[in-house]
Amino acid sequence: MLRWNIPPLPASLDEALWGRIHGKTKPLGSLGRLEALAFQLGRIQQSLRPELKNPTFLVFAGDHGIAESGVSSYPQEVTTQMVLNFLAGGAAINVFCRQHELKLQVVDAGVKGDLPDHPDLRRCKVRPGTRNFLHDPAMTSAELEEALRHGVAVVEECSRSGSNLLGFGEMGIGNTSSAAALMQRLSGLPLECCVGRGTGLDDTGLKHKHAVLESALERHPEVADPWEVLRTFGGLEIAMMSGAMLQAAQRGMVLLVDGFIATVAFLVAVQVQPRIQEYAVFAHQSEEQGHRRLLEFLQAEPLLHLGMRLGEGSGAAVAFPLLQSAAAFLSEMASFESAGVSERSDA
Amino acid sequence: MLRWNIPPLPASLDEALWGRIHGKTKPLGSLGRLEALAFQLGRIQQSLRPELKNPTFLVFAGDHGIAESGVSSYPQEVTTQMVLNFLAGGAAINVFCRQHELKLQVVDAGVKGDLPDHPDLRRCKVRPGTRNFLHDPAMTSAELEEALRHGVAVVEECSRSGSNLLGFGEMGIGNTSSAAALMQRLSGLPLECCVGRGTGLDDTGLKHKHAVLESALERHPEVADPWEVLRTFGGLEIAMMSGAMLQAAQRGMVLLVDGFIATVAFLVAVQVQPRIQEYAVFAHQSEEQGHRRLLEFLQAEPLLHLGMRLGEGSGAAVAFPLLQSAAAFLSEMASFESAGVSERSDA
Repeated sequence: MLRWNIPPLPASLDEALWGRIHGKTKPLGSLGRLEALAFQLGRIQQSLRPELKNPTFLVFAGDHGIAESGVSSYPQEVTTQMVLNFLAGGAAINVFCRQHELKLQVVDAGVKGDLPDHPDLRRCKVRPGTRNFLHDPAMTSAELEEALRHGVAVVEECSRSGSNLLGFGEMGIGNTSSAAALMQRLSGLPLECCVGRGTGLDDTGLKHKHAVLESALERHPEVADPWEVLRTFGGLEIAMMSGAMLQAAQRGMVLLVDGFIATVAFLVAVQVQPRIQEYAVFAHQSEEQGHRRLLEFLQAEPLLHLGMRLGEGSGAAVAFPLLQSAAAFLSEMASFESAGVSERSDA
Repeated sequence: MLRWNIPPLPASLDEALWGRIHGKTKPLGSLGRLEALAFQLGRIQQSLRPELKNPTFLVFAGDHGIAESGVSSYPQEVTTQMVLNFLAGGAAINVFCRQHELKLQVVDAGVKGDLPDHPDLRRCKVRPGTRNFLHDPAMTSAELEEALRHGVAVVEECSRSGSNLLGFGEMGIGNTSSAAALMQRLSGLPLECCVGRGTGLDDTGLKHKHAVLESALERHPEVADPWEVLRTFGGLEIAMMSGAMLQAAQRGMVLLVDGFIATVAFLVAVQVQPRIQEYAVFAHQSEEQGHRRLLEFLQAEPLLHLGMRLGEGSGAAVAFPLLQSAAAFLSEMASFESAGVSERSDA
């Protein structure tokens, strides 16, 4: 299997970073989460003036064999249709990427349908959809490795084009089922904490999804190693995202993690290489049932709580300007000294 | 006293707006709060394609007589120093306004110090700071009326320059004390729910602030009418903001309300003219103690929870891109029909 070696972040700049943050013309701590975020960005880039360069959003798309088992409200062809919608610029992620001048790359990790050539599309199809893990492992070892390698290659290309921040999103009918199974097996949390309504199942649909996943998990009881869990229950888009996240952290990039599926891809990655955690910013807490518990499990504090549950990287794109704000105040704000503002009279 | 006549928003477009939101290529409701926000923007502008035009942030600054009673961690001259910092472009609000291309106007409602001429400064000084309401009412009736009239004039100018969204922020050493007294008297909530640490009081300072405000409220026991409460305990920047908010709603503008002080100015306004509520978006929940309770009292759901408590309109500026996102998805996203995406298979 591939190996990653994520550099530990030295603490040598920590004091100077907090000194700079606290010296700005504002009451101590009054920018709240933006201060912690500025510190994290400075730490990742080992700079007192972190900059977000050429920020790029990667939307990994793939189909899922488990969709045959009736776990989604939408038919499987919607994966392909939505990828076409991304390429035509009509989806939510397109709107938000245009708004924030984010470069968008759609990665075909394993979509079932045919896709046209397009400058925004990276062709990395490992196979047209995974196997149904209710019966068989979703991928072979060779397929998993191929997915990871594609993830690495996509990130290398972003790195070469000067990007130092990547947003991670996905599309794939059935992928909340894959993600719920991965979360259950890797976190050990009860299945009912991991399974949610996805794109909008009703109570009957949710019950069915739970039963399908319970059987699927029982069918592969021995699988425990993170790579093996990913191979068995994963999606190709999830696997490719895990590989891409590990590579991005190894390259010292900022990882902006979207919702439930992207966070599950991160869960795999962090179990393989715990040092990835320092590089990750969690954009938002999705309404999808498992996401809150998963963020708690990861001790991750999301930036936004907007009740979104769309995927595509949409929550990450909406959160992106907060990272810009954090970097900007650290670079641009005056200090008490430079602006001639009096400090606290009681301090 | 001045009168406002805020037009009620007709419901005639409501169904078409929700139809448009639900027809977009996304699972029903999956953009969460952004959907409610898009609906509100569409309703205020009575348009299926709301647009945020020439968004302008108004930062009202004023000094407070109550600052003599030792209720703040910072000396009073910081109000003037921070206004100079705004004019020099070095404060947090400058950084965030530049980031989002927001026009910034600083309004001198009653700063004690002298200020230079500057294209971003509106001279509306009613007097150099209020009286100390521990002893006397903060303003005379004539001063309150003058403050409100200036608020109206500032908004009229924004309206003439084509702005249809105003952000409301403030600066004023001592103004969390004024705001806490206003909140207590207008909401009837216990004083301890309304008083917070402001720019960073320690426990002793907080206790002293509470005691000062308790005495001040006891000194003016009969005052109950919103205008009279504002005249007695208000700040000039708060009064001018209340007048500006009422005028902005009358003009059909979107009001983006910042933190604790701005929300208290809104509390006065909504008690005078309840119809203002439909025009207001609450940007964030501040860490300042009274803000959460005040938002609950107003049944207002803030967009962000970032633990900010800086004032200046900084929380509103950081929230601004969410309003853009809401307007943008409503205008730009493809529909299931236009994109040829299949609808739910179980619906």
